[in-house]
Amino acid sequence: MGYYIKKEDVEDLVVGAAILGTGGGGDPYVGKLMVLQSLERGEKIELLDIESIEDNSFVVPVAAMGTPVVLIEKVPSGKEALYSLNLIEEFYKKKVDYISPIEAGGINSTIPLVVGAKRKIPVIDADGMGRAFPELQMVTFHIHGVSATPMAISDERGNASILSTIDNYWAEKIARAITVKFGGSAWIAIYATYGSLYKKACVKGSISLAIEIGKTIRTARQSGKNIIDALLDVTKGYYLFSGKIVDVSRFNIGGFARGEAKIEGLDDYKGSTLIIRFQNENLVAIRDNEVIATVPDLITIFDKETVKPITTERLRYGLRVIVIGIPCNEKWRNEKGLEVVGPKYFGYNVEYIPLEKRIRNFN
Amino acid sequence: MGYYIKKEDVEDLVVGAAILGTGGGGDPYVGKLMVLQSLERGEKIELLDIESIEDNSFVVPVAAMGTPVVLIEKVPSGKEALYSLNLIEEFYKKKVDYISPIEAGGINSTIPLVVGAKRKIPVIDADGMGRAFPELQMVTFHIHGVSATPMAISDERGNASILSTIDNYWAEKIARAITVKFGGSAWIAIYATYGSLYKKACVKGSISLAIEIGKTIRTARQSGKNIIDALLDVTKGYYLFSGKIVDVSRFNIGGFARGEAKIEGLDDYKGSTLIIRFQNENLVAIRDNEVIATVPDLITIFDKETVKPITTERLRYGLRVIVIGIPCNEKWRNEKGLEVVGPKYFGYNVEYIPLEKRIRNFN
Repeated sequence: MGYYIKKEDVEDLVVGAAILGTGGGGDPYVGKLMVLQSLERGEKIELLDIESIEDNSFVVPVAAMGTPVVLIEKVPSGKEALYSLNLIEEFYKKKVDYISPIEAGGINSTIPLVVGAKRKIPVIDADGMGRAFPELQMVTFHIHGVSATPMAISDERGNASILSTIDNYWAEKIARAITVKFGGSAWIAIYATYGSLYKKACVKGSISLAIEIGKTIRTARQSGKNIIDALLDVTKGYYLFSGKIVDVSRFNIGGFARGEAKIEGLDDYKGSTLIIRFQNENLVAIRDNEVIATVPDLITIFDKETVKPITTERLRYGLRVIVIGIPCNEKWRNEKGLEVVGPKYFGYNVEYIPLEKRIRNFN
Repeated sequence: MGYYIKKEDVEDLVVGAAILGTGGGGDPYVGKLMVLQSLERGEKIELLDIESIEDNSFVVPVAAMGTPVVLIEKVPSGKEALYSLNLIEEFYKKKVDYISPIEAGGINSTIPLVVGAKRKIPVIDADGMGRAFPELQMVTFHIHGVSATPMAISDERGNASILSTIDNYWAEKIARAITVKFGGSAWIAIYATYGSLYKKACVKGSISLAIEIGKTIRTARQSGKNIIDALLDVTKGYYLFSGKIVDVSRFNIGGFARGEAKIEGLDDYKGSTLIIRFQNENLVAIRDNEVIATVPDLITIFDKETVKPITTERLRYGLRVIVIGIPCNEKWRNEKGLEVVGPKYFGYNVEYIPLEKRIRNFN
């Protein structure tokens, strides 16, 4: 038997998920509302350690797909996410034993909890990223050879599709086109696999890590401690910059929210400028023309006043911010991982250097 | 037992299909090659009258979807079309009893024959249009309440999807987006239904009509008779115009080949100008600013020299052409039919007036 999620865990989880979301993954407050409604209806959410998962069990990650901005405008009722899971069960003619998050960031850390609550299926305390990423093949499941398809994709109207593609990049391509036609957001059940392979392929403990991060911040806030210090402590992160946003440019293309924020330094960083480039998530941080952090390491922006993480769609001129970096999961730090989520995949001609090494060189 | 298609039938069929294709439906010569290859391999193609279809039989129309221009560049091997049919059988857990064409024009009049030959399944002598149309809901199956989905869509690489949508317009929208991602062409199995409903919903005898049209032209050609006169006779069509193409504009948008051709009159039509607007198929013919024919009636352009029908993608400056009009099937000539395929659906603010009435008024 696993751990049953409590109301205060949800508050902590969405704070931690927003930080691991590294600017992307959708508005965490939409997800929080959905989980709290589940708990208020008396539904139970069981969180299971991966050690409890049987090798021959059927594990199915579920998620929302699309441009986070659209999810803010079309708040989901919670039922939408069930449809794709049900389709997978029909297609495989098999009951799902465990649900998994695909990412540990933003709304997709809470969607699986809502689905698990409604369907009375335990949720595994793990995910496929240890953070948020913008594309479907950007998961540790992919680099461990799990097929994204047969996958299910559906919308809130009742439109749905089962996809079967020759590789996971094609799954991304076709599912993205469908998501755009659905109006910008869709619900997916993807990377269905067996417990044995899942255990090898996942990033362990990411839900409980998100909760722990949230709790650390809450405790620091309550006891008047420095919140950022406490956060860097628990995440083994680095303080990268503080300043004022002086420009944000963005464009919505092919179902992604892309853009760039320019931050002028304040306090210790006066005279410096930080540029952050994003595609749903923050991808690259450039300080005075020098790269100081890149994907797959995490770059998270906080509102300096409230010390709350800010998603890329909420970045705006005049906001005073703190930027931190967090080392990514080790599963990404190898040739295969970097091929899938390294800076070059995103179009930046920069070698990946682990954040902690960049910082050492820089300071 | 039905009629077995012979080699000379194929030659006649593609000529007739190109005429019924009314400028669209893809290059008939690609389709002809595919069927002739089937016959040369010794495969049999059985054509069945709709009276032979049992009420509880499982009927599945198959087709190619996409921009005809792309199909010329990626000549299909014939195997591609099987995949979607196989997916439908897997999904329904039922063997397909009969294959049907979805349209009677262009390449889609021959694709079902190739699939039928390979799978040893009889093809029904009927279709869902009695001509060609550019969108999936533009079939008599749709106006008779048959659901387009669950449908299968696949590409030549092995990517595939089973779609289930809330209505047939959504099926068109999602399948079109997938087709674009597939590179412009896809293979579909759609409007799967029972014999009883199929018989009510289809346009009867459209394959044999296409063969008859082709045969009439061949016979006229061989005996030195006037080919166009013979054609107008067998199709109950009208001579609309003859002239020289002086301008063709086209643009590929959302998976459709749209455009306009301008024809300057010659002979009896000297001093007149005919404009033809198309979206895959020819949709509207305007003579000296007066509409003389509109969709769903058929508008077909012939090369004056060879007296062969020309698809919209082969229209070019300088070509001397003859334009004819053919009344459409009666199933389209009512409120429901015109809502789906009338000139207003295509964005022309013109009332539909049956071709024969327009001609009477005009002459």
